[in-house]
Amino acid sequence: YELTVVDGIKVGRVNGLAVVGQDSGQVLPIMAEATPTQGATGTIVATGLLKEIAQESITNVSAIVKKFTGRDIRNMDVHIQFIGTYSGVEGDSASVSVATAVISAIEGIPVRQDVAMTGSLSVRGNVLPIGGATYKIEAAAKAGIKTVIIPHSNLDDVLIEERYKDMVEIIPVSTIEEVLDVALVPERKEAFMEKIRNLARMTPAEFLEKVSGTSGKKVPGA
Amino acid sequence: YELTVVDGIKVGRVNGLAVVGQDSGQVLPIMAEATPTQGATGTIVATGLLKEIAQESITNVSAIVKKFTGRDIRNMDVHIQFIGTYSGVEGDSASVSVATAVISAIEGIPVRQDVAMTGSLSVRGNVLPIGGATYKIEAAAKAGIKTVIIPHSNLDDVLIEERYKDMVEIIPVSTIEEVLDVALVPERKEAFMEKIRNLARMTPAEFLEKVSGTSGKKVPGA
Amino acid sequence: YELTVVDGIKVGRVNGLAVVGQDSGQVLPIMAEATPTQGATGTIVATGLLKEIAQESITNVSAIVKKFTGRDIRNMDVHIQFIGTYSGVEGDSASVSVATAVISAIEGIPVRQDVAMTGSLSVRGNVLPIGGATYKIEAAAKAGIKTVIIPHSNLDDVLIEERYKDMVEIIPVSTIEEVLDVALVPERKEAFMEKIRNLARMTPAEFLEKVSGTSGKKVPGA
Amino acid sequence: YELTVVDGIKVGRVNGLAVVGQDSGQVLPIMAEATPTQGATGTIVATGLLKEIAQESITNVSAIVKKFTGRDIRNMDVHIQFIGTYSGVEGDSASVSVATAVISAIEGIPVRQDVAMTGSLSVRGNVLPIGGATYKIEAAAKAGIKTVIIPHSNLDDVLIEERYKDMVEIIPVSTIEEVLDVALVPERKEAFMEKIRNLARMTPAEFLEKVSGTSGKKVPGA
Amino acid sequence: YELTVVDGIKVGRVNGLAVVGQDSGQVLPIMAEATPTQGATGTIVATGLLKEIAQESITNVSAIVKKFTGRDIRNMDVHIQFIGTYSGVEGDSASVSVATAVISAIEGIPVRQDVAMTGSLSVRGNVLPIGGATYKIEAAAKAGIKTVIIPHSNLDDVLIEERYKDMVEIIPVSTIEEVLDVALVPERKEAFMEKIRNLARMTPAEFLEKVSGTSGKKVPGA
Amino acid sequence: YELTVVDGIKVGRVNGLAVVGQDSGQVLPIMAEATPTQGATGTIVATGLLKEIAQESITNVSAIVKKFTGRDIRNMDVHIQFIGTYSGVEGDSASVSVATAVISAIEGIPVRQDVAMTGSLSVRGNVLPIGGATYKIEAAAKAGIKTVIIPHSNLDDVLIEERYKDMVEIIPVSTIEEVLDVALVPERKEAFMEKIRNLARMTPAEFLEKVSGTSGKKVPGA
Ligand SMILES: [Ca+2]
Ligand SMILES: [Ca+2]
Ligand SMILES: [Ca+2]
Ligand SMILES: [Ca+2]
Ligand SMILES: [Ca+2]
Ligand SMILES: [Ca+2]
Ligand SMILES: [Ca+2]
Ligand SMILES: [Ca+2]
Ligand SMILES: [Ca+2]
Ligand SMILES: [Ca+2]
Ligand SMILES: [Ca+2]
Ligand SMILES: [Ca+2]
Repeated sequence: YELTVVDGIKVGRVNGLAVVGQDSGQVLPIMAEATPTQGATGTIVATGLLKEIAQESITNVSAIVKKFTGRDIRNMDVHIQFIGTYSGVEGDSASVSVATAVISAIEGIPVRQDVAMTGSLSVRGNVLPIGGATYKIEAAAKAGIKTVIIPHSNLDDVLIEERYKDMVEIIPVSTIEEVLDVALVPERKEAFMEKIRNLARMTPAEFLEKVSGTSGKKVPGA
Repeated sequence: YELTVVDGIKVGRVNGLAVVGQDSGQVLPIMAEATPTQGATGTIVATGLLKEIAQESITNVSAIVKKFTGRDIRNMDVHIQFIGTYSGVEGDSASVSVATAVISAIEGIPVRQDVAMTGSLSVRGNVLPIGGATYKIEAAAKAGIKTVIIPHSNLDDVLIEERYKDMVEIIPVSTIEEVLDVALVPERKEAFMEKIRNLARMTPAEFLEKVSGTSGKKVPGA
Repeated sequence: YELTVVDGIKVGRVNGLAVVGQDSGQVLPIMAEATPTQGATGTIVATGLLKEIAQESITNVSAIVKKFTGRDIRNMDVHIQFIGTYSGVEGDSASVSVATAVISAIEGIPVRQDVAMTGSLSVRGNVLPIGGATYKIEAAAKAGIKTVIIPHSNLDDVLIEERYKDMVEIIPVSTIEEVLDVALVPERKEAFMEKIRNLARMTPAEFLEKVSGTSGKKVPGA
Repeated sequence: YELTVVDGIKVGRVNGLAVVGQDSGQVLPIMAEATPTQGATGTIVATGLLKEIAQESITNVSAIVKKFTGRDIRNMDVHIQFIGTYSGVEGDSASVSVATAVISAIEGIPVRQDVAMTGSLSVRGNVLPIGGATYKIEAAAKAGIKTVIIPHSNLDDVLIEERYKDMVEIIPVSTIEEVLDVALVPERKEAFMEKIRNLARMTPAEFLEKVSGTSGKKVPGA
Repeated sequence: YELTVVDGIKVGRVNGLAVVGQDSGQVLPIMAEATPTQGATGTIVATGLLKEIAQESITNVSAIVKKFTGRDIRNMDVHIQFIGTYSGVEGDSASVSVATAVISAIEGIPVRQDVAMTGSLSVRGNVLPIGGATYKIEAAAKAGIKTVIIPHSNLDDVLIEERYKDMVEIIPVSTIEEVLDVALVPERKEAFMEKIRNLARMTPAEFLEKVSGTSGKKVPGA
Repeated sequence: YELTVVDGIKVGRVNGLAVVGQDSGQVLPIMAEATPTQGATGTIVATGLLKEIAQESITNVSAIVKKFTGRDIRNMDVHIQFIGTYSGVEGDSASVSVATAVISAIEGIPVRQDVAMTGSLSVRGNVLPIGGATYKIEAAAKAGIKTVIIPHSNLDDVLIEERYKDMVEIIPVSTIEEVLDVALVPERKEAFMEKIRNLARMTPAEFLEKVSGTSGKKVPGA
């Protein structure tokens, strides 16, 4: 198994991007798996020595995952692994990568390995700006990545050297739906994106009524 | 996605207000989402590096949310996110913003984005005074906000410069019901406010009897 | 909403009393609310930066609450809030105030706001002595309070200045039942106090048999 | 309510004994109450700033309580309170006092207040030696206590001054059964002690079969 | 109750052995009791100020206990007590003593008190080497113990003084089954050891099928 | 019981490999057992003073175990023990050893003791590179091990001395399936490996449907 994979497709594996030191970037692979839970209820756990903001970003991603899988995940344990981060993970810019890897793992839908991505996430699925966009894009290009997803609000920060401009296509996005549209390779693309958009529109009460029929009901007379 | 949004309406997003340093304010967006729970029971979790008083304020807000949604939320996880607070959140003055964002998310009712708000909350829904009212109002005005909700007990503290006076309308409030009345845009305004007022009047025992029929019953003969 | 309320009645709000510094007292409002639980089972949570002894006093109060409400509170979350204690709460002298606020909130019975109180509590409902009785009474008088409840065992400590003597009535008490008798304003006073006294007399086994019929049963043959 | 009670009987209250400083003793009241649980299952909680060994002693006492009440206590919360120990509780010599207070509270059987006691407990009900026996006995005598229960293995340590010898009777004990025999005042003494002795003889499997019929069963064929 | 017991038999009590300082040993009594659980599920808890390795050894012992009792222990709380270890317990050499005490307590089978033992345990029941074998054996002999169980792999370390050689018999063991064979005094020895050996041979899946019939089942078609 | 075992087969025991100091290796035995759970739900617990990365590696291994046993393990507690690591365990290079020991224990399938192994694991079963490959192989050879499993990506690092080359066979692997193929000795090899490969191909949803029939279902209409 090679740590660098930049072509083909894989379930549960996403090429994230990290800033290293002051002025360089790195491809940071993130893997996810979902398994039947060993406990009474599901958990989401991430390894790779995540520091405080990174750990909080997993909590935010979990909101997206619970919403966008459209499944009752109470019987699943979700495992997230930052590969090779023995000196720790800082920040929340891997949020879109983590969300994509987890949704891929739960749904069994492959991820394009020639795509790398960076972006923070709101709990409602908005892609928020990150730091080091230029360094990250250049690192992706050098590693052989063909497409880099970045937050739309970072477009103005991108000042990559001329030689990288033809190597990678930059795709700015504003929502997790757009990220999934670029990175995932479902068997039936249209049906999958339609499902994702339906889930994004549902209120919590509508969702709970669909999942269980008995939850989130209004108090009679209230 | 732009971090500053000062017009239109959005579900689960509220423009809060924070004091920065000694003498300036800032618009602080707060987002919320409610999802089917992954665990056996619902949780409320907030990210954004909340310090002790801020974390306790989430606990207080949860009392309001459990009461004012009028729903059985045992199957929901509530996610609250302070956007961009990478150096932490202090104090409890965002309580009204958090409560409004969460109720918006659970009910699927949009929030006016031209409104900003600040205020602490009691567990019974009273709006309590906060610090830095003037700085916060001026920051809201500068950002393009049209209406600022502040605690009634802070009215005397407001000494804003002349040039801001025509830019923003200041609305003093005493209860969370008044905040929701100004900030939320439900499809049927009257019915929604009527529901909120009914919930505010209910005792816990009445509420539990409505939700489950079997809880909170009196001990026979006691 | 004003932080100082010294007349009328309110559900779930009690005027406690605190010592500030070495030689002065302060009215310390305490609020409580009980809501349907979001979790599988009920919790009791208190905010206001409680230090160790204050936190333990909430645990002791919870014994009283579980006993004196006469309800199955497994589906309720109880929220307690010390208002404005941004530099923390020390000691257990607010125990009677907390117990009164919580019982008021659960039962929906209003509390007299012209009454202030101080006193520690045993897990069996005895009112135990506190410090600073004189400072607390004087602070209550200055704030406009008409009646101050203190522990009977503190009567000898009270040395208030002449000018306060006509301003407040001091009521010494030995049990939480006496506190509730003075401070609560139930619709049917006699029936309520009779219920409280019945609950005080019940053994745990009798109580459990009334609540569920199946718990606390003796082991057959033992 | 007076902190010192040395005559009559009370449910859930025991006069323990503590060493204070290097060479004096003190009567240390301990109170207990058992209430219907607010959570899904019962808990045992002790307040009074217990340090590590004291906290562990509560764990050991819980083994005794679970065994000697002969009840299914899964629906009970047990509250234990060391009265007035604002500078903390060290050591495990209050174990017999705690066990007696809790059993009294659960069963509704009064405790003699003219009795004070000291002694550590094994998880099987043996009374183990403690320190400061002489100081503790003298403090009990001075406070007006008539009978002091001490561990049999401490008999040789007792060197009390002549003047105290006629004031208190010293009763050495080896088991918690003997402590309960001296301190509790059940309505039907013989029946109660017979029940306690039966429970002491039962194996866990026999006990579980009596309580639930379905637990602790042998694996068929094993 | 005397702390030193070196003859007769007792349920739930084992004479362990500890090293004290650099060059001496000590008999360390360990007691256990199993009670109906107060919580929803069983727990194993040990007191006596156990340090990190000692605490982990309890976890390892729990694997043995869950396997070798052949019972569904979900309704049992297991209490383990190191007697008199007020300055803490280090290391895992008491593992065999703890396992023996707990199995004795759960099954109601007495332990020989003229036997002392030392040995670490693997989670599969192997007896692993310990330190200080010679000091421990000499301490046992001096205390009046007649038989000392040690790990087979420690046999070469034993260099006891001549005068102790006739005082104690040393029995080297390799498995917990051998320990139980020496130390326990069941009513029907053959049947008990047969049961223990059957349990040792069972796979987890076989065990779960026997206990519940519904657990650990294979996934159909997998 | 000898700590070093390098021939025959054993259930639940694997010869791992560790780096000691700067430039030497060591055989590190790892044992596992699975037992009926004492709690409501299963847990995975590891002892041996695991430091942060080692503890996280157990979390990652648990994803593999939950997936590759093909069993509902909610009623099992999994115990993992690093033997003799009294100064702690660092790093994640024992992941393949732990996974193999646990799967062996749960399935009751023996492990070859003449095999030693080292390798990190992704949550999806990829074998990732480790440090100290050469030192570990030499240590295995010296201890009498005949076969050493290493990550394929470490092949280039292996520079063992001539004299060890004939002593051990080195088997490079890329997935946990390959590790199990070399190390386990099931009764019916083909059927076991077929089962493992089927499990590896299943999506979480397929798995959950097989285990329970009711979990992970799609939301109707989504
Ligand atoms: Ca990144
Ligand atoms: Ca959206
Ligand atoms: Ca604010
Ligand atoms: Ca109100
Ligand atoms: Ca007070
Ligand atoms: Ca009473
Ligand atoms: Ca004592
Ligand atoms: Ca006994
Ligand atoms: Ca030992
Ligand atoms: Ca074995
Ligand atoms: Ca290794
Ligand atoms: Ca794979």
